[in-house]
This record gives sequence, C-alpha cells and structure tokens, in this order.
Amino acid sequence: MSIQAVIPLFDRFTALDGIGPYEVLQRIPDIDVTFIGHGRGEVRSENGFLGVTRDATFEDVPRPDVIVFPGGVGSRPLMTDTRVLDWVRAAHETSTFTTSVCTGSLVLGAAGLLDGLTATTHWGAFETLEGTGATPVPDRVVEHLDDRIITAAGVSSGIDMALRLVELLIDRTAAEAAQLMIEYDPQPPFDAGSVEAAGPEVKQRVQEYATQRK
Amino acid sequence: MSIQAVIPLFDRFTALDGIGPYEVLQRIPDIDVTFIGHGRGEVRSENGFLGVTRDATFEDVPRPDVIVFPGGVGSRPLMTDTRVLDWVRAAHETSTFTTSVCTGSLVLGAAGLLDGLTATTHWGAFETLEGTGATPVPDRVVEHLDDRIITAAGVSSGIDMALRLVELLIDRTAAEAAQLMIEYDPQPPFDAGSVEAAGPEVKQRVQEYATQRK
Repeated sequence: MSIQAVIPLFDRFTALDGIGPYEVLQRIPDIDVTFIGHGRGEVRSENGFLGVTRDATFEDVPRPDVIVFPGGVGSRPLMTDTRVLDWVRAAHETSTFTTSVCTGSLVLGAAGLLDGLTATTHWGAFETLEGTGATPVPDRVVEHLDDRIITAAGVSSGIDMALRLVELLIDRTAAEAAQLMIEYDPQPPFDAGSVEAAGPEVKQRVQEYATQRK
Repeated sequence: MSIQAVIPLFDRFTALDGIGPYEVLQRIPDIDVTFIGHGRGEVRSENGFLGVTRDATFEDVPRPDVIVFPGGVGSRPLMTDTRVLDWVRAAHETSTFTTSVCTGSLVLGAAGLLDGLTATTHWGAFETLEGTGATPVPDRVVEHLDDRIITAAGVSSGIDMALRLVELLIDRTAAEAAQLMIEYDPQPPFDAGSVEAAGPEVKQRVQEYATQRK
C-alpha cells in the first residue's frame, strides 16, 4: 500500500503551513509526499527568504489520496485561479481526505468544497472564509469525515491536523510514532498563540509588523 | 537595525528542524534569514521528497548574528567536515547566539562549542552528543546565555526555541506577536511526544518505521 499525499505550493506561500504536515506525513513509510504546483521548480515563501521545489504539476497528479493545501499571502489569488479550482474540485471527487492549513481553506472554499460546512482558517481570515460559503469556527482542527474534508487554523495547526490525519489513514499507533519521532511535546515559552490569549500590546505589535514586512 | 540569521542546509536534513525556527524568526521585520550551505542551490530532505534552496555558501556569511543549525541523518557526516566545523567555530566567535535543533547539536559539539556544557538533541542521539564532550540533558531547550549557545531537542522543539530567541533578540512582545501570527496554540491529539509519555507499542512502531524508511 502506498498513499499519495500532495502539497500544492505557490508564490508567497507560508512555509510552516506546508512543512509542518509534510514532516508528520513523511515519517510514515506508506505515505509518499509530492510538492506540486502550476509548474515544476522553485517557488518562494512570503518574504522570499525560502525557496522550495515543486516536483510535479497539478495535472501530473490528478487523483491524489490526500491533499494538504497550505496558505499564505499567495493563496488569495488562487481563489480566482480556475486551473487550481478545477483541479482541486476534480481531485476531491476521488481523494480520501482533502485538507487545508491556514488560508489554504480559502482555496477549498472558493472551489465550493466548503459550502454549508463549518471550517477554520487563520484568525485573520474568518471574514474571507465566510464569503466562500463556509461557516467559520475558531477550532484548531475542523473535521467533516463524511465529506472527507478537514481544515486547520493558522500555520502551526497543520502539525496537529497531520497527526490526526495519520490516525485516520493508518492507525493511532502510527500517529503517535510520528509524534514521538518529531518529539512533538510542545512547550511554548509564552501563552499568546490564540486571539483569546494574546494581550492588546501583542495584537498591536502584530499590526505594526504587518505593515513593516512586505 | 537588521539581524542576520543563517540556517545551514545539507543533504538529508530534517525539514521541520530548519523551517520551524525560520517561520518564527522571519515574522520579525528586523530579522533576515538566509539558508546557507556548501554550495548554492537545492538540497533534499532525508527521504528526498522536499527540495530547498541554499542562497549562499558558508563563506558568504562569515559573521552572522544568529546561527540555527538543524539536524537530520545528514548532520552526522558534518561532524567530521572540517569546512563546516571551521566555519561554525569562527562564526561563533562573533555571533549573538549559536543554536541548534535536533541532531544539529552534534555539529556544534564536534566543533568543540559544547565542551563541558549541558546540551540537548533528539532523544535518539544522546550517546553521540555525549561523545562530543557535552553533557546531554533531556530538556526541550537548554540555554547558556553567557556562552551564547542554545540547543533544542528533537525536530518540533525548534519552534519553542525560536520564540525564546526572539525574546532575547528583540523583546517578549515581539516573541508573543510571532506566536500569535503563527497561531502557535498547540493541541496535539495524543500524548506521545516524549520518550517518557510514549508507550512501548509506539516505540516498537518507531523502530519498525526506521528500518522501512530509507
């Protein structure tokens, strides 16, 4: 048995959105992961500091078992990219699970896959997600197993989602083995990882940084 | 002010070791991150599924402010690579912080930077780390601020370390802002992220996977 997972990449993607789930999934010998996109070759993360290679085009992998759509500034133009939307709609017809991290859910929503479903995204993108026909909820991972759709919240939440995905695809021991291999025993030094927990000065700083960083 | 952080990459690196800290550090407008290595261009992660670009050579960046050395199967050959060891020793003379994630600490140790210090690494590499002259301890992040050295445990621990690094380099609000931006409010679906927490069947599965995955 070999499970084919694909992670679409595009200009100005958010690195951890894709690499977090990649790191979990690739720990399982039965899962192969391929980075795909409009073309083969390099794309750059949001600020351009990181280049990652796409090894196949969307059309090269029309029927993957698992789709993990990452987000980033660059996911918004994909909401009107018919090539991407047609691909994800068709791929979802036969996928075992179609998933997203962060603003990757905006692409699933724009493709019509979240119509009438609860879903999540980065805390800064709830309104846009709602505009696609989804009902945004602030959970870290939102599962619709009958619809084979799972969405995760911002950036780092893809690690949590991918562990659950391994449980669904293989079994719980496999998921726990992946967790142990990546030593995922998180000990954040602060408690500011959610909108509810972060104080006003932290939110103010996020605003400042958003205007400074291109 | 601009802080220059470098992340060395090499064949068969562990992706999340480098990308976790990258995602945190690059959120701060005053921090520039450059991926470096023996040459410019692409290197591949452990199983070859992921290609990442190195934008500069070691010699191009002799005096970075921050070094984050990731690990992976490919870090062990670096323990006898004089080009890498000479670079990291020289770079550490002027760095603000020299840090590692996972088996990246084996390289710092082989360079003599951990002599007589407590340090950490992936749980599977404690004996090798001890062989370099360090005293392994099972903490998630081990700081020696006077020596300007910080080591982190396996793979995902680099995210925790990088948040602390931002606090040290900028201030606590900056670190919390980065945490909020990447929505780092971890909710692992299982409790198997440490050797202490994982059950025997999980450890057995890790062994099986280690022999199956090249």
